[in-house]
Amino acid sequence: MMDYSRLSPREVRRLIREGKITGPTSGMCLGYAQANLVSLPKALSYDFLLFTQRNPKACPVLEVSDAGSRALPYLAPDADIALDIPKYRVYKNGVMTGEYFKADQYWREDLVSFLIGCSFSFEDALLEAGVPVRHIEECRNVPMYNTSIPLVPAGVFHGNMVVSMRPVPRDLVVRAVTVTAAMPRVHGAPVHIGDPAAIGIQNINKPDYGDSVTIHPDEVPVFWPCGVTPQAVVMRVKPEFAITHAPGHMFITDIRNAHLKD
Amino acid sequence: MMDYSRLSPREVRRLIREGKITGPTSGMCLGYAQANLVSLPKALSYDFLLFTQRNPKACPVLEVSDAGSRALPYLAPDADIALDIPKYRVYKNGVMTGEYFKADQYWREDLVSFLIGCSFSFEDALLEAGVPVRHIEECRNVPMYNTSIPLVPAGVFHGNMVVSMRPVPRDLVVRAVTVTAAMPRVHGAPVHIGDPAAIGIQNINKPDYGDSVTIHPDEVPVFWPCGVTPQAVVMRVKPEFAITHAPGHMFITDIRNAHLKD
Repeated sequence: MMDYSRLSPREVRRLIREGKITGPTSGMCLGYAQANLVSLPKALSYDFLLFTQRNPKACPVLEVSDAGSRALPYLAPDADIALDIPKYRVYKNGVMTGEYFKADQYWREDLVSFLIGCSFSFEDALLEAGVPVRHIEECRNVPMYNTSIPLVPAGVFHGNMVVSMRPVPRDLVVRAVTVTAAMPRVHGAPVHIGDPAAIGIQNINKPDYGDSVTIHPDEVPVFWPCGVTPQAVVMRVKPEFAITHAPGHMFITDIRNAHLKD
Repeated sequence: MMDYSRLSPREVRRLIREGKITGPTSGMCLGYAQANLVSLPKALSYDFLLFTQRNPKACPVLEVSDAGSRALPYLAPDADIALDIPKYRVYKNGVMTGEYFKADQYWREDLVSFLIGCSFSFEDALLEAGVPVRHIEECRNVPMYNTSIPLVPAGVFHGNMVVSMRPVPRDLVVRAVTVTAAMPRVHGAPVHIGDPAAIGIQNINKPDYGDSVTIHPDEVPVFWPCGVTPQAVVMRVKPEFAITHAPGHMFITDIRNAHLKD
């Protein structure tokens, strides 16, 4: 397997567009932010933008395209959001109709694209700060859980927060909070520390999405708002049409994670 | 003159609604955030919400009402945004048609209210951190300037940033940055330190809004994004209808400034 960690975002997006990269983007372009994609018809976009404004921890928006535009002048001026993600999902009336390497043939003139921050960014920062990230050590997907934490509704959108969990050694919990709190544009500080039941999680070993990971006796489960939240909320209302990235196949931006602290 | 600094926001809003307070709100309810108001017809609200998302330093949104609703469940659950500000301005086609103590008779079912963070909040924090705030010392309004700093356009909205200026002693500039950077929801860190000409300000002694203040020889002018920006941008497009607060007559929220650091 090729190592894409030292390539620039522009180089990796070119390889994606040429069909030479079609897999998950984890570990590519170290130091650069990756983003979740939700593209919705303009008719739904006001409610969704308001939902993200009311729930910034679960839905930290990095950029919103103009309606009908495939350009992202802030995140990546030379990118085409319909071509530069390795794998897309297309949904009709809330049902996935297929996964595709390119989305241009499905694009519509009324689509608004929401690029939403991803916890990959703060995992880099945790590792640099000496906080272990268990699912990376164990080569698994991060465990994610539905919770009882209500989101603030906006128009047709409503639901509860989805969280990701990382076990943190007791003596590093404070550092894990301060490191991630400094990055509010990629979910920021944890929403809960310690007691899964307090946020409606019945069994920490049975995540609702992703994989379970080992929690050692001297470790505390720490829960962060998760980028799955906005997709779960959108799909719940069964939008007439939507395009998203496929899980793990993210949009790689030109923005350095370190700049997300501004 | 009565001292309203120790009253609760709920008490002061009641006095405002009863017509017993009709003046500027500066210094009232110490420790609680005050907010700017821009109410626009729903037809303009998507573009404006997108504009605030793209320009969060100049337009830090604290809450957006539902269309037609006068309630603000997050900022002040018992408030009525059409009654609880001491003085309103009503605009038709971008021209102010009057100032009023109540806005309920002008309210429309299609209005969306945007409550935007105000630098009053970080001035409290600066004073507590030992950073002098000159216009408060000199009992003037803060000096504000049009700049050459472009904002990111969204739909019909575009323009340059308006900034406020506070002279800071050289040895306190770093502290002024760190204190305000911790409060991104009320404009956050400065946009410029030191050279007015670098951001298009020709004469520091002739502000475009507010009053000029003394700058001592050992002080540096520090410039922050200003809440006048969103109002200036809105009025530039001459919206068919708009309601705003009158300058200095803010909405007093139930949210403590200290909680704006979350």
